[in-house]
Amino acid sequence: MAKKGSGGSLLIRGGTVVAPSGPLEADLLIRGELVQAIGQDLPAGNAEVLDANGCIVLPGVIDAHTHIALDTGIYQTSDDWFTATRAAAFGGVTTVIDFATQSKGQSLRQAVEERLAEAKEATIDYGLHVMVTDLPPGREAELEDLVEMGAPSIKLYTTYRPNYYADDATILRLFRACSALAIRPLVHCENDDLIAAETEALVATGQTGWRNHGRSRPPLAEQEAVQRILLLAEMAGCPVHIVHCTTAQSVDFIVSAQAEGQIVSCETCPQYLLLDEECYERADPWQYVLQPPLRDGWDAVALGMSLQIGDIDLVATDHCDYTRDQKMAYDDFTKTPGGLPGLETLLPLMYTYGVAEERVSLLRLAQVLCTNPAAVWGLWPLKGALLPGFDADVVIYDPRTQSRIEAQRLHHVAGYTPYEGMPVQGEVKATILRGQVVYIDGEFVGSRGAGRFVPRRLPTVGAPGTAR
Amino acid sequence: MAKKGSGGSLLIRGGTVVAPSGPLEADLLIRGELVQAIGQDLPAGNAEVLDANGCIVLPGVIDAHTHIALDTGIYQTSDDWFTATRAAAFGGVTTVIDFATQSKGQSLRQAVEERLAEAKEATIDYGLHVMVTDLPPGREAELEDLVEMGAPSIKLYTTYRPNYYADDATILRLFRACSALAIRPLVHCENDDLIAAETEALVATGQTGWRNHGRSRPPLAEQEAVQRILLLAEMAGCPVHIVHCTTAQSVDFIVSAQAEGQIVSCETCPQYLLLDEECYERADPWQYVLQPPLRDGWDAVALGMSLQIGDIDLVATDHCDYTRDQKMAYDDFTKTPGGLPGLETLLPLMYTYGVAEERVSLLRLAQVLCTNPAAVWGLWPLKGALLPGFDADVVIYDPRTQSRIEAQRLHHVAGYTPYEGMPVQGEVKATILRGQVVYIDGEFVGSRGAGRFVPRRLPTVGAPGTAR
Amino acid sequence: MAKKGSGGSLLIRGGTVVAPSGPLEADLLIRGELVQAIGQDLPAGNAEVLDANGCIVLPGVIDAHTHIALDTGIYQTSDDWFTATRAAAFGGVTTVIDFATQSKGQSLRQAVEERLAEAKEATIDYGLHVMVTDLPPGREAELEDLVEMGAPSIKLYTTYRPNYYADDATILRLFRACSALAIRPLVHCENDDLIAAETEALVATGQTGWRNHGRSRPPLAEQEAVQRILLLAEMAGCPVHIVHCTTAQSVDFIVSAQAEGQIVSCETCPQYLLLDEECYERADPWQYVLQPPLRDGWDAVALGMSLQIGDIDLVATDHCDYTRDQKMAYDDFTKTPGGLPGLETLLPLMYTYGVAEERVSLLRLAQVLCTNPAAVWGLWPLKGALLPGFDADVVIYDPRTQSRIEAQRLHHVAGYTPYEGMPVQGEVKATILRGQVVYIDGEFVGSRGAGRFVPRRLPTVGAPGTAR
Amino acid sequence: MAKKGSGGSLLIRGGTVVAPSGPLEADLLIRGELVQAIGQDLPAGNAEVLDANGCIVLPGVIDAHTHIALDTGIYQTSDDWFTATRAAAFGGVTTVIDFATQSKGQSLRQAVEERLAEAKEATIDYGLHVMVTDLPPGREAELEDLVEMGAPSIKLYTTYRPNYYADDATILRLFRACSALAIRPLVHCENDDLIAAETEALVATGQTGWRNHGRSRPPLAEQEAVQRILLLAEMAGCPVHIVHCTTAQSVDFIVSAQAEGQIVSCETCPQYLLLDEECYERADPWQYVLQPPLRDGWDAVALGMSLQIGDIDLVATDHCDYTRDQKMAYDDFTKTPGGLPGLETLLPLMYTYGVAEERVSLLRLAQVLCTNPAAVWGLWPLKGALLPGFDADVVIYDPRTQSRIEAQRLHHVAGYTPYEGMPVQGEVKATILRGQVVYIDGEFVGSRGAGRFVPRRLPTVGAPGTAR
Repeated sequence: MAKKGSGGSLLIRGGTVVAPSGPLEADLLIRGELVQAIGQDLPAGNAEVLDANGCIVLPGVIDAHTHIALDTGIYQTSDDWFTATRAAAFGGVTTVIDFATQSKGQSLRQAVEERLAEAKEATIDYGLHVMVTDLPPGREAELEDLVEMGAPSIKLYTTYRPNYYADDATILRLFRACSALAIRPLVHCENDDLIAAETEALVATGQTGWRNHGRSRPPLAEQEAVQRILLLAEMAGCPVHIVHCTTAQSVDFIVSAQAEGQIVSCETCPQYLLLDEECYERADPWQYVLQPPLRDGWDAVALGMSLQIGDIDLVATDHCDYTRDQKMAYDDFTKTPGGLPGLETLLPLMYTYGVAEERVSLLRLAQVLCTNPAAVWGLWPLKGALLPGFDADVVIYDPRTQSRIEAQRLHHVAGYTPYEGMPVQGEVKATILRGQVVYIDGEFVGSRGAGRFVPRRLPTVGAPGTAR
Repeated sequence: MAKKGSGGSLLIRGGTVVAPSGPLEADLLIRGELVQAIGQDLPAGNAEVLDANGCIVLPGVIDAHTHIALDTGIYQTSDDWFTATRAAAFGGVTTVIDFATQSKGQSLRQAVEERLAEAKEATIDYGLHVMVTDLPPGREAELEDLVEMGAPSIKLYTTYRPNYYADDATILRLFRACSALAIRPLVHCENDDLIAAETEALVATGQTGWRNHGRSRPPLAEQEAVQRILLLAEMAGCPVHIVHCTTAQSVDFIVSAQAEGQIVSCETCPQYLLLDEECYERADPWQYVLQPPLRDGWDAVALGMSLQIGDIDLVATDHCDYTRDQKMAYDDFTKTPGGLPGLETLLPLMYTYGVAEERVSLLRLAQVLCTNPAAVWGLWPLKGALLPGFDADVVIYDPRTQSRIEAQRLHHVAGYTPYEGMPVQGEVKATILRGQVVYIDGEFVGSRGAGRFVPRRLPTVGAPGTAR
Repeated sequence: MAKKGSGGSLLIRGGTVVAPSGPLEADLLIRGELVQAIGQDLPAGNAEVLDANGCIVLPGVIDAHTHIALDTGIYQTSDDWFTATRAAAFGGVTTVIDFATQSKGQSLRQAVEERLAEAKEATIDYGLHVMVTDLPPGREAELEDLVEMGAPSIKLYTTYRPNYYADDATILRLFRACSALAIRPLVHCENDDLIAAETEALVATGQTGWRNHGRSRPPLAEQEAVQRILLLAEMAGCPVHIVHCTTAQSVDFIVSAQAEGQIVSCETCPQYLLLDEECYERADPWQYVLQPPLRDGWDAVALGMSLQIGDIDLVATDHCDYTRDQKMAYDDFTKTPGGLPGLETLLPLMYTYGVAEERVSLLRLAQVLCTNPAAVWGLWPLKGALLPGFDADVVIYDPRTQSRIEAQRLHHVAGYTPYEGMPVQGEVKATILRGQVVYIDGEFVGSRGAGRFVPRRLPTVGAPGTAR
Repeated sequence: MAKKGSGGSLLIRGGTVVAPSGPLEADLLIRGELVQAIGQDLPAGNAEVLDANGCIVLPGVIDAHTHIALDTGIYQTSDDWFTATRAAAFGGVTTVIDFATQSKGQSLRQAVEERLAEAKEATIDYGLHVMVTDLPPGREAELEDLVEMGAPSIKLYTTYRPNYYADDATILRLFRACSALAIRPLVHCENDDLIAAETEALVATGQTGWRNHGRSRPPLAEQEAVQRILLLAEMAGCPVHIVHCTTAQSVDFIVSAQAEGQIVSCETCPQYLLLDEECYERADPWQYVLQPPLRDGWDAVALGMSLQIGDIDLVATDHCDYTRDQKMAYDDFTKTPGGLPGLETLLPLMYTYGVAEERVSLLRLAQVLCTNPAAVWGLWPLKGALLPGFDADVVIYDPRTQSRIEAQRLHHVAGYTPYEGMPVQGEVKATILRGQVVYIDGEFVGSRGAGRFVPRRLPTVGAPGTAR
């Protein structure tokens, strides 16, 4: 197998291409940065040839929810845009949508520009959601800058008082402003009061050890916030995306809203599908400090079924690469930074526990990891499918190998993975970013800074042919 | 422009191909009967070249509900498989799913075989649903023959007593049998009692003129039957397809059932989207005698919106080519055969009043006319998309012309069209059936008998990647 | 204790009177046929005094669904108006609402008059619902006679083809007619097709023994019919009463309709609360042949809870006094007349398994047996409460005794009771009909023909202060 | 007509008594403090006789939501327990349920005791809800004191930060505690964030004049809070009462929760039924500063219909007697104390615009003003009905007079009424508190301190025979 795309043409031959219609036995011809053709027995011409025999050829994975090089003011994650996106490339991810966090006093434009400067080292493509933390009444017009800059999605939190927290009035006001602008807000839904109270109660009784983490953020906190956000979005006439749903009830509220005609999309994460609150009983509960926390195993099962039948649109990682040391500093969940590394393991886990275990089809896998993130977040019809004219972001997955996840073989910085030891079926053979092979056969061959910011443009409300 | 595909290779160059991702500027390379490649600047090699510049290249239209050469025992439609499918080819339709009607005493296998013999003259491909009229308890195993023969869909009627009518017990029993066999029943939902009573009342008062037709089959008759069929299907654990929905309430019942997790698909027809009960006030009300009848204009508007947002899966014609003479024989709706010709006008009407008037996107057009009929009815992934390995069923539509629908320029036999005089935007330039041009630039170049029976195989209940 | 009311005044002293507010320690003074006063320490004056110390004083029970002296054309029940109402008096029932069955060809007025003639022997009061079997279009005006005659409730059947069966069109038409007339239809909901098919299947396989009865009329048959009738009633804008609900799903459909603003009332019967399908495994399954049949035990539990929280309005018996010989004639459910005797056991069973076992309060008991039947069926504010001006229909129940139900101690004619051997707490001490003691201390002291027809008048739709 | 009850016996003769069954022509005999008997032609014996000929005899009105002598820390209402309850007596109100406000640092017991001391001057009976403002985790056991003291209802606010505001965690925690204790919380539902934001926006633009008041507290603020409180209550398994509903959507949320089995009661107030936001356009908009504010006229109409059909349980006044001077001090809604006087006008308004205008029946009037407040709030079966053993709280209403509401003829202190000039049909002729006439024929004849605290006891969750 060749090591690298020519920059000219590349022919991926003999694989099973996951097209929007499902798997096809076909070749994929790439010219420059774009897919030129998908077809059978395509002539190689002077194209370099990559043999994908026995492999699955998927659109590059789009992880629509990551926190690379996150600086919360208190903690900094260990990765940077280079290391994180290199790990992503190892895992078949060719685009991330990360976050520009607006500092108090900053304009939204500044927030985006600042973050764009940081992201220059990226080895894969990236988009930005914008965490709005300071947009008082009268400054809503700045949201238009986001549309113009190609970052038409704002992240709002109903929790993390006082930093990220937005109160209901702010949320409603921003929803109303977004509704006029084809911006889709994405909301972290957890009721801050309920969490504060549970946490306080645990603190008061000295139950702050990691294994109590889950109890500090009860399911009801999420469910109440989901229901409330749906009502506010409905009243504002604004589409909304609910991030990292962890309970069946949350998804039920969303499905009911959709049945009433509301435009809502949602996601879950591998950790909520594959892990559950029993992890807090393990020897290493610090690993599972994240927000929202792991839930009951039945919720995990229900989320899997929702994923299969299409009630959940996409799977993202909420990647947050705190180190083992950062997380283990204090056996106190109130002091432990929340979040898990996940970029590199996203595709292998979803392939293994989704496709190989016959919970979802290959097509559905491509939908939740590639097509739907692109469709929901305005990368469509640029990315998310292997069709002529689309960016030639490709991942070649060899489903024949068997291994186990081991942190030491992964490439993020944190030094641990919550999935340690879990068997996986298959592995990424090659990752191609806009026609360039960036990873192949165990070797990273991309380059620092080769990733580009991808301006996104959201479909107008109710536009046909788009995801919800 | 060349007149005919070579039987070898054909390159459709320069058009806007409607891929599952939406419109792409791309070429389409056909080899033999299949799409070989879709791509940009594909080399022609020794392929014949069809210039599609300025045109839209769609998958061949699949009309999933037609009644070609229908013999009800009382009336025979005027067309035969040759004339009907030739008209279809003129209209860009490359596949119909028609019906094999089981006669009393016949086995299901015989019914299919008999109908297959009749269909041999077809110029385009065809599948068969099977109208089950005589399958008493104990004979359910015959349904397995349908699966084996590739006709895994049975049509049931809640009306037309005594001929086609199935009582609730029969329906429930057959639903249960189908549920174990990956057969999806399709049901004509109208409450026979309600219709009989309204008709009787009109007869009793001498109000049998055509313009009373709509009153004889009230919306409630349809709505009640839809609700009932949904309940029976739910109880049987059987997917179900509701044909020709005509009211917003019918679609609401279906959407509610789906929100509860039930697997239901549905269709409407151009006549219910584009015509309404005011037609019965026109000078030629005999044209609009069909079952169900035309409804209130608000229902038509609501159906259009349901189509746009995806609540209706597909549009089919319910084509039924009674002649002007047959329909005008008596100014008495009880004696007038019900049904409209529609095969040839399906695509132009849906393009004009859907895409050109900006109600639906090109992608959604392709979904409701090509992709979804294929997905719902088990022609997927064989037909319904323009991707490598799919049947090279293609329609090239030139959106630049303007004309009006005139019966005299159409090719069915009936001698009238209910859409007479309606402006249309664009026209079919060429229709390709499995790589063979069958219609081009005003001329039918297909051949009698070139159409094939396409055995269908339905997805298992809940299989991922399929339409509902 | 005195044997008999004086015809003048009667003072019931020292009991616990169940007033609309709940139990009160109070005396009840009766003058002539009416309650004169309810109060504490009422002076007896020259009134005869009945000592109710330790006893519960309830309004006379209204059994709103009975089939006394039923002649179906095939079978005649064994009782007559004298024997049946005497048994009723033994059981504390002071009013029944029975049925006038319209024969084919008869006017509704004739049907009522004919039945009134038969009922003249009654020892307690009675109203009449009217089974409409022959009211073709154009004769709806006859329904006005029912209003005028005080029988403003028509019984319709979705089953028992061809005798009683009304098709959907007839039902809709009559609902519409009733909606303009303050008539409330009551409907026996079982899908006739489903029953016919199940029965046929059992017959075909020789499974016609009594123990198969339940299988011949599946729960879905009832549930489908309930859902359908609710839709038809909603569309007609007509209140409706669903008789003898036997499954939780039936009640759910009703509650959902009510939540949408529809006016629906419903009932269940002691047999569906206290017996279940395991009875068909007993040695005497012939006893339990009735329509609808006994259901799953969980349904019985659920019905009990619905009764407690008010989702079921009233409890009636569907009393039908076929003899042991009639029922045992053939071990073939298709030949066995359906129905159970129940008039005399209604109150003791409901008191024992409702109040004594603390499932319902005394007040709720009075509501489902007295107040609500009166309110739903237009006997209010004449009967159903023990307040001044109301008919002095009273039952004095002594809760202190314990016994078992034994057919030989009951007074109906059938010679068996399906409740044989069941323990009961308490017993009726006295029954008073419009101020006259008709039963006391084991002795029937009423008189043949003392019962009167009570013309009923239904509340207008949505009138305040009435039951649903 | 006699001036005063004897303290011995009193016979109210010849009126139309509104019994739980509806209106009866009956006499009412009172002995001491209790109703002794209700009956026809009751002998007077040595009882004093009050002639009620032509009058309606109702249970004394229970106003379950008043703020007598309210001291918010900023404002004090003008009335005291004597003047307020005297005004109440003029209006036929015999019981109020007012509030004990817990000060920070105070125990719940102290709060109740303190308020009880203040209330000693009352001329009519009173109960207390308890505004819990400071019950941190660990002190929930104090709620048991409320049960013991007969004040089993706590008032919580989702608004009025920081004074009365309870955050969601506090609300959930207290709901859970109440759920185990047969305490029913009552909640003022308005989203504080939304109100703060709207207010801020109005302040920022100088739009603080009274006529802007309504805009500062939008309907959505109420609706969101109602939905949220219902979810929290459901999750806590706690019954809940929603005070002063002002919009149709609020009631819809409540009805939906009830249909799902949740135990919820609710109220509205005369001001939301009879006034609407157009009042803010009047010359005296300061009058209509209250929380929640007046709404759209359609909401008023919808509330009236909800009242009629029973979706709203009770009507209370939220009486709050700020003076004209207090309210007019600043033309600035942010500085204007919110609230309206209403005690004395409750019954005449509800009679006039409810009964006389035929929107509700006399029975329904008694239900929403007497029976239901008693049932919901645990005064049943002590007050709320005119039956033997109940407190002899009676109001005699003469429906024959006509007048207009004029502040100068009312007896509260504020000096204005928002209903000034509105025509009323009928007037209170006499008010009787536990057998003592306290008002008759224009003269207050009660005594300072004659009112008693009525300990209340709430029904257990789901107990039969109670209001929801």
